[in-house]
Amino acid sequence: MIIVLRLGHRIERDKRTTTHVSLVARAFLADEVIITGERDEHALETVRKIAENWGGTFKTTYEKNWQPVVKRFKEKGFALVHLTMYGLPLPEVLAEIKKNANLLIIVGGEKVPSGIYKQADFNVSVTFQPHSEIAALAVFLDRYRGNLEAYTKNFGGQLRIVPMKSGKKVISAGKSR
Amino acid sequence: MIIVLRLGHRIERDKRTTTHVSLVARAFLADEVIITGERDEHALETVRKIAENWGGTFKTTYEKNWQPVVKRFKEKGFALVHLTMYGLPLPEVLAEIKKNANLLIIVGGEKVPSGIYKQADFNVSVTFQPHSEIAALAVFLDRYRGNLEAYTKNFGGQLRIVPMKSGKKVISAGKSR
Repeated sequence: MIIVLRLGHRIERDKRTTTHVSLVARAFLADEVIITGERDEHALETVRKIAENWGGTFKTTYEKNWQPVVKRFKEKGFALVHLTMYGLPLPEVLAEIKKNANLLIIVGGEKVPSGIYKQADFNVSVTFQPHSEIAALAVFLDRYRGNLEAYTKNFGGQLRIVPMKSGKKVISAGKSR
Repeated sequence: MIIVLRLGHRIERDKRTTTHVSLVARAFLADEVIITGERDEHALETVRKIAENWGGTFKTTYEKNWQPVVKRFKEKGFALVHLTMYGLPLPEVLAEIKKNANLLIIVGGEKVPSGIYKQADFNVSVTFQPHSEIAALAVFLDRYRGNLEAYTKNFGGQLRIVPMKSGKKVISAGKSR
């Protein structure tokens, strides 16, 4: 089971990036995103609606503080993977992380509390350059999962894309549009 | 040479996502981002400052319209790779794309003009689920490049991260801080 913990959401600044983080989690086959920080019903609703239309069992939940989330999943035996600019390079630690089937993947947040670095089992860097928590999560999940299942999984949603060389085709509950 | 073309930037809505797209392009070793749509000096400046501090030769440029950009790079013999929810699955087309050393990688934009689908040499889908152009670009570049060079390249910047298991260490022009 893979849970993504999105730290310290701020309604004004992070509305689109938190939505992207959540949709990436879903598309790359995580089971749930937990968003901490400011409660943002609009962002939660956006993700839930997309998840409903496109299918699957992905959950979007909110909790004010990260501490109880980390404590709970540690107690359940999940490995805590913190994606950060710092940490050890993904290619070096990936094999070790793959030994764990249950992950809590933590992504920041502008200012990540130092407690996260300390409690994480793995602080993992994706390139050591400043870029994007959305990108770090996608590359991590793509490498962790291998990249085939994400393309072949049938989410069973109302909407489904038909692969094609050029142009767009979406099947909507059996009808193309 | 790898150029990323970011379509149809809107100052209000896209300021953070366009910044993320640009920083991902840089971190995963593209050479330049060209942003079309609304001119946004603030977003351009944000990326340029980060690129300056962290080193390398990444370029951030603006052009109002995408058509001349596509025309120019087609004439130069670049392969046009359009990342979209539609298109063919990345694992299926990657080997073919890898035969090209010069790519113009195109990412949307809410509404991608149909001309893009037609002119692209490759319309490529990263998972067929709705998620994020930032994530699609990162996963594409990670898979195209292999994932080692992005971790080992010396950008020669003023700032540089020292990999570590826990905590943060940044070297600033020779001094750690």
